[in-house]
Amino acid sequence: MNTRIEHDLLGDLPVPADAWYGIQTQRALDNFSITGVPISHFPDFVRALAMVKKAAAMANRDLGALAPHKAEAILAACDDIIAGHLHDQFVVDLIQGGAGTSTNMNANEVIANLALEKLGHGRGEYHHLHPNDDVNRSQSTNDAYPTAVCLAVQFAAEPLERVIIHLKESLEQKGRQFADVVKMGRTQLQDAVPMTLGQEFEAFAVNLGEDIERLHEASRLLCEVNLGGTAIGTGINTHPRYQALAVNYLAEISGKPLVSASNLVEASSDMGAFVLFSGILKRFAVKLGKMCNDLRLLSSGPRTGLGEILLPPMQPGSSIMPGKVNPVIPEAVNQTAYQVIASDLAVTLAAEAGQLQLNAMEPLIVFNLLNSMKMLGSACSMLDERCIKDIRANTEQCARHLDNSIGIITALVPRLGYSNATRIASKALNSGSTVRDLVLEEGLLDAGELDRLLSPRAMLAPVGDEL
Amino acid sequence: MNTRIEHDLLGDLPVPADAWYGIQTQRALDNFSITGVPISHFPDFVRALAMVKKAAAMANRDLGALAPHKAEAILAACDDIIAGHLHDQFVVDLIQGGAGTSTNMNANEVIANLALEKLGHGRGEYHHLHPNDDVNRSQSTNDAYPTAVCLAVQFAAEPLERVIIHLKESLEQKGRQFADVVKMGRTQLQDAVPMTLGQEFEAFAVNLGEDIERLHEASRLLCEVNLGGTAIGTGINTHPRYQALAVNYLAEISGKPLVSASNLVEASSDMGAFVLFSGILKRFAVKLGKMCNDLRLLSSGPRTGLGEILLPPMQPGSSIMPGKVNPVIPEAVNQTAYQVIASDLAVTLAAEAGQLQLNAMEPLIVFNLLNSMKMLGSACSMLDERCIKDIRANTEQCARHLDNSIGIITALVPRLGYSNATRIASKALNSGSTVRDLVLEEGLLDAGELDRLLSPRAMLAPVGDEL
Amino acid sequence: MNTRIEHDLLGDLPVPADAWYGIQTQRALDNFSITGVPISHFPDFVRALAMVKKAAAMANRDLGALAPHKAEAILAACDDIIAGHLHDQFVVDLIQGGAGTSTNMNANEVIANLALEKLGHGRGEYHHLHPNDDVNRSQSTNDAYPTAVCLAVQFAAEPLERVIIHLKESLEQKGRQFADVVKMGRTQLQDAVPMTLGQEFEAFAVNLGEDIERLHEASRLLCEVNLGGTAIGTGINTHPRYQALAVNYLAEISGKPLVSASNLVEASSDMGAFVLFSGILKRFAVKLGKMCNDLRLLSSGPRTGLGEILLPPMQPGSSIMPGKVNPVIPEAVNQTAYQVIASDLAVTLAAEAGQLQLNAMEPLIVFNLLNSMKMLGSACSMLDERCIKDIRANTEQCARHLDNSIGIITALVPRLGYSNATRIASKALNSGSTVRDLVLEEGLLDAGELDRLLSPRAMLAPVGDEL
Amino acid sequence: MNTRIEHDLLGDLPVPADAWYGIQTQRALDNFSITGVPISHFPDFVRALAMVKKAAAMANRDLGALAPHKAEAILAACDDIIAGHLHDQFVVDLIQGGAGTSTNMNANEVIANLALEKLGHGRGEYHHLHPNDDVNRSQSTNDAYPTAVCLAVQFAAEPLERVIIHLKESLEQKGRQFADVVKMGRTQLQDAVPMTLGQEFEAFAVNLGEDIERLHEASRLLCEVNLGGTAIGTGINTHPRYQALAVNYLAEISGKPLVSASNLVEASSDMGAFVLFSGILKRFAVKLGKMCNDLRLLSSGPRTGLGEILLPPMQPGSSIMPGKVNPVIPEAVNQTAYQVIASDLAVTLAAEAGQLQLNAMEPLIVFNLLNSMKMLGSACSMLDERCIKDIRANTEQCARHLDNSIGIITALVPRLGYSNATRIASKALNSGSTVRDLVLEEGLLDAGELDRLLSPRAMLAPVGDEL
Repeated sequence: MNTRIEHDLLGDLPVPADAWYGIQTQRALDNFSITGVPISHFPDFVRALAMVKKAAAMANRDLGALAPHKAEAILAACDDIIAGHLHDQFVVDLIQGGAGTSTNMNANEVIANLALEKLGHGRGEYHHLHPNDDVNRSQSTNDAYPTAVCLAVQFAAEPLERVIIHLKESLEQKGRQFADVVKMGRTQLQDAVPMTLGQEFEAFAVNLGEDIERLHEASRLLCEVNLGGTAIGTGINTHPRYQALAVNYLAEISGKPLVSASNLVEASSDMGAFVLFSGILKRFAVKLGKMCNDLRLLSSGPRTGLGEILLPPMQPGSSIMPGKVNPVIPEAVNQTAYQVIASDLAVTLAAEAGQLQLNAMEPLIVFNLLNSMKMLGSACSMLDERCIKDIRANTEQCARHLDNSIGIITALVPRLGYSNATRIASKALNSGSTVRDLVLEEGLLDAGELDRLLSPRAMLAPVGDEL
Repeated sequence: MNTRIEHDLLGDLPVPADAWYGIQTQRALDNFSITGVPISHFPDFVRALAMVKKAAAMANRDLGALAPHKAEAILAACDDIIAGHLHDQFVVDLIQGGAGTSTNMNANEVIANLALEKLGHGRGEYHHLHPNDDVNRSQSTNDAYPTAVCLAVQFAAEPLERVIIHLKESLEQKGRQFADVVKMGRTQLQDAVPMTLGQEFEAFAVNLGEDIERLHEASRLLCEVNLGGTAIGTGINTHPRYQALAVNYLAEISGKPLVSASNLVEASSDMGAFVLFSGILKRFAVKLGKMCNDLRLLSSGPRTGLGEILLPPMQPGSSIMPGKVNPVIPEAVNQTAYQVIASDLAVTLAAEAGQLQLNAMEPLIVFNLLNSMKMLGSACSMLDERCIKDIRANTEQCARHLDNSIGIITALVPRLGYSNATRIASKALNSGSTVRDLVLEEGLLDAGELDRLLSPRAMLAPVGDEL
Repeated sequence: MNTRIEHDLLGDLPVPADAWYGIQTQRALDNFSITGVPISHFPDFVRALAMVKKAAAMANRDLGALAPHKAEAILAACDDIIAGHLHDQFVVDLIQGGAGTSTNMNANEVIANLALEKLGHGRGEYHHLHPNDDVNRSQSTNDAYPTAVCLAVQFAAEPLERVIIHLKESLEQKGRQFADVVKMGRTQLQDAVPMTLGQEFEAFAVNLGEDIERLHEASRLLCEVNLGGTAIGTGINTHPRYQALAVNYLAEISGKPLVSASNLVEASSDMGAFVLFSGILKRFAVKLGKMCNDLRLLSSGPRTGLGEILLPPMQPGSSIMPGKVNPVIPEAVNQTAYQVIASDLAVTLAAEAGQLQLNAMEPLIVFNLLNSMKMLGSACSMLDERCIKDIRANTEQCARHLDNSIGIITALVPRLGYSNATRIASKALNSGSTVRDLVLEEGLLDAGELDRLLSPRAMLAPVGDEL
Repeated sequence: MNTRIEHDLLGDLPVPADAWYGIQTQRALDNFSITGVPISHFPDFVRALAMVKKAAAMANRDLGALAPHKAEAILAACDDIIAGHLHDQFVVDLIQGGAGTSTNMNANEVIANLALEKLGHGRGEYHHLHPNDDVNRSQSTNDAYPTAVCLAVQFAAEPLERVIIHLKESLEQKGRQFADVVKMGRTQLQDAVPMTLGQEFEAFAVNLGEDIERLHEASRLLCEVNLGGTAIGTGINTHPRYQALAVNYLAEISGKPLVSASNLVEASSDMGAFVLFSGILKRFAVKLGKMCNDLRLLSSGPRTGLGEILLPPMQPGSSIMPGKVNPVIPEAVNQTAYQVIASDLAVTLAAEAGQLQLNAMEPLIVFNLLNSMKMLGSACSMLDERCIKDIRANTEQCARHLDNSIGIITALVPRLGYSNATRIASKALNSGSTVRDLVLEEGLLDAGELDRLLSPRAMLAPVGDEL
């Protein structure tokens, strides 16, 4: 392999001659191979890094801290990366020591070498344009990296929100489709009172839909960035007007309403916004998991379970049992939900491990947030397309359950009183009779009134003034 | 023990003659003794239950679903409990099966018996006024219990917020007190660049302060209650106008801006607002933990640690090592934080375990939320009073560290360039010299400029136009 | 309140005149009130502390490090406490800073004052016999406390093991009782192949039974104690023969096969044995939870669920729905299991937070381990007595499910081949026919062979040589 | 793309013509893309699957359940895969619904097509040799998959154990190298009593070393396999002698001492052995994390921290602060440890979610166990090679700390008494004097005795008979 020699604090090291990254990236490559997942796995993150570098260069240029020709070359390089070029040069493993320094230097070096080329120089000729002195000008990893993370998470949240919206719409559509399928509701897995299957799906839709707003709120907290704080939030080595300028430029470039954090020292080490964001993802995972548990329960059978809905068969269910079809899609979603819940713990642990002016574990937070969003996005989309849209109601089974149930007696409590109704319910359970038969037998209500009280319409809506 | 006999679905059971609770509470007492922590351990919860019962009774009275004399007696009974009476009659273990039915019935029975007394009847004479038919009128555990929990959590959040505010103020006060103590900042436990000790404490204050707002937001979500949804959210056995009336009354009684959840079927089983609330408590615990870790690091020593601050000694630190004083207060806070983080997991697990129209694990959620708030409140108050307020700065040690540090070279980078500065830093580290001496020795800057660049003022604020 | 004045490193402090504890306990009482749970909540822990103190005193006496009359008085005091006296004097909150120093000093002070009385002196007259110089002789909190914890956990494991054994026996008994109830097995909530209800319960028994052995193994690791290591494991301030003597005496007193940890420096800070023990408790909780989930599934209904078993009704299930009976006992166990899983996280977090020569978070570990065991013990006992023992089979429902199922076709695969059987299964599902009818209709097998292949005996045991 | 058409229960589907897998794998590919990590990412798992298939084929052949020519072809195909061929054909995402059916079918199909080729037939010509009827003969996913997982985890544990052993040896070597570096030990970050740096590293070695044995024990539990239980453990569709034969063959092929689980129904759904194994990985992660925390503390500085050891610099530490070198390797290990702790939660959640006769979430367990082991292996190896081996002691700093410390007074307690020593310690702390000077000044001990008592030899070993 052809190499070029580069130099840093620790001495010389060969770098592949055709690499756009440089020596510090090379050292990080040599040091870290924990996950095998490079930065480039998350294009949103690469784009966010380039945007930060671009905003900083623009501010530096305006303040005379960066020569115009250098600034121009850096901006052009950043634009290339934002447009999707050279992402494969972001090679460092996402889990890395150094609080993101290697990721920041990977960006600095790729941008520097790309800018050098634009200026007609060769890779590694950093005396013309330097990764630290120029690309990283007025920055530290400790402000550039977290700022890029804030952006990347927001970018990644967008497609996730879109798939949640689609999923919600599919559930609403099912809610409408099943609006007339009356069935027994269940609490604690025991027969409760009647409802419609439509209400059940509508509730799923409402439930998941709420988290779209929560994601928005949590994203808003990520708009407070610490860019300009440099090493520890004191803004050392920056021009007094740099911070405001850089944040403004970044807001413009990214299209996100970024503002400076009110206290940059605090913002340098605080992971609170990420903990909250992760908590929202966990909450969504919990809800998704609960819904998929329900789908699996409701579709249990086909002959010895609840059997009130039919999931579309997606693959043969067994290598030994012919004809078996399993709820494989919800099962995969449940597992995804567990993984996201676990990732939230990783984020929590990393956040708690901050020390003094920085949190060195931020790379783990980034890894888990981006991973969780990617997995949730895939899971929701899979669930929507390969399950929800083709769910069918087993109307006969719903009706059979309803007719057979004892729970309908609840509708008679306002007439019979709790104690009396309890007695009838017990009798029904022990004798195998239906509630209707027993009530008539005992002459507690006449058939007409009973019909009226036990009609779906009466049972599904609050009782009226006639009470 | 004198007893009276009561009767329910399962038959007869003796209840202590002087108990204000009844048979269903007795069964729950016999069934559950997991934690040993009764409902009465959390007076906020008892009050919240009584408020729900009161609001329901008022609505029932208005709608003619409850005879005026019964309503009056129930309201009076509820008021007594809200005022703090008979809390010791709320005896059921907080962890219970039945999705809170035992807690709800404990409230129904105590209120019924108290109301019976007000009407001149004896305990257990439920044919005059019945725990289910009258006190629980138009309600199910499945709406009354979660609604009470929403209130209880909000009530419990108030004193917690107050202690956080006090803690924040103490930290701000320390921030002002230490505003002139210049010291080295540290990232990744390695010397970074200068800051003041005041900035460090101010950052703590800002950091914790943010969570007050988050608690408010999360509380707001708890204002959407499902009262009126009864068994599964369909409002079975309620008057069409009951729900709105009851929620309005409850808002009035509780002083909280309660509204009806938009979808009561969804609201019956959804634990999302609790998951979010718990997530905020966890986030706060994470921050508190990080701060206490820092306090312990900064006060490490007295002779072989960082030693930049002195915590007030609260107790002898060792049974064998004379004179040892340990950071016992932050240590206790750290443990509290871990417990709260763990509790958040319990909440998460319980939330995920909801099935179909209800979450039977809600009692565990209540237990953990109320417990976490209680523990956090105690911990914050302890930390404030027994540690933060009496922290002193070790100004000499801060100065010694600053003078001796290599990190100050960062302030010279704009003059020397990153590579040149790196070389000087290495030389200083290897030789044991100071940065100042080496720069002068090499004639890189003259003494006057060096003094100016390394003055606290210059190092602590972004460099000016003169760059 | 009458008080006496005591003195320590930090100065004077009044202590209640009739308290058997002293100044350092008083300080801890003033400092810590996080959980409200005092040491005395766990008598096993109090006994273990007294045993450690007794063993140390015996070793000190033998080595001449403690005057005989003092030793005698201390031993007598320890014996009193081991016998259950004065437990109410162990008042410090279990969650405390100081790595257990307050707990250790609480023990030292109570024992000193009790010993002083036996010697005819008043409380607080420590110049006759001193909590530190005499009771704590040759010890540090850092070896005495963890050693006591190792013992306490082992003691607490004994009753837990006993209730698990009883629970296992009840499940085995159900296994035998239901040996002839043939039913459909289910995988992924879908009909699979036949089994007996007895096999299902027998599997529960085997599953839980395995953890008895695991608890034993994990207890064995707790037999390696660091007594004699004093402050950091170097044994400072002990006689060279002290460690072996003290550990031997402690083994004798406690009846546990204790040995010295091979490396006392390591043992001073290592929490590994507790992490493992907690992991076993978590594993048991996971299994218990899974079983209770199954019990709730199998008993779901009564009319619209699986309904294959009937749990004994323990309390009315609803405040609104008459006749409803819920699986309240398994639900309470599920919540307990979640709490134990969460506690394991607290233990993990605390264990990871050890620093250098000690883990200051050990009190949190103790709290969670003892709490989890207490809760699991209560839960298992409740489950055994109030649920398992009175479970009944719904034999008719089991038979109905079996006859109706498509899963039985698996038994025909060796004859029909997978593809052919798959076709029949699909046909059955779509047409509503039974497998038997379709096979006969298509003439694939004659009735006799079909009967033989679908007999319970054939389906429940591996097919024989006749294949 | 050229395709061939295959057929299953759900109908026809095109499969890439050159794919060795078949229709069911194709469906799984279409269904699942959650993690993007295919089975082939873990070669141990692919090998384990092939071994299970081989063992089953051998047993089937012996029992006449598989024609000899088919058996031969299947064995040859399995051998190819065991030897590393065609791993890229194991394409299904590790997180999948269906309890592993897709993984099992992926194996069945690849083996079937490879065997078909060996028999001279084309891919997909399953009438000659069928993935289900022949390769999967006498098996279900529900026994074949968990058995393969048990093997894969054991295989993956081997290299992990090796790197732990190496790491342990490096730590022991450091223990020997630093045997004479006397330093202050610290408890609760406060100066405690003297020890050697060698003892500190030796303790690390012992601490991590213990987990090698734990891993062995946990692996032993994985030797109990459920092969032969087929669908739910009743062994349906197997020859009575199949189970024993197949397990014996598998033991022989794998070189692992496999035995049949004692209760196959229990074993089919139980994830207990995986929970325990994961718990051991978590425990190891906790220890690794604690050690890396210590390394970062001990190397903190270079000028304003503890500075007792020097980690080898692996990369420049800052993009803004020249000369800064950070403890990047331990930081990356800490993050790995957090991820492993989080993965244990995912395993726990998945294990608790088993239902009735199977745990459908097992794929998530596999994913996390294999991932954790891979990450831990990389982390340990990185830590060993890139950090531990080149750690140097800062002997001067250690000595400076020792001389300056107050903690050495503990060594004088047997002479001075606890109260007296406490007084001296306070005086030293307040005055800034050393303990030695104060003791001499007060004439409490003469210089000779003081020297003897404070010599490293005396302080590092238990005091002798001379007391």
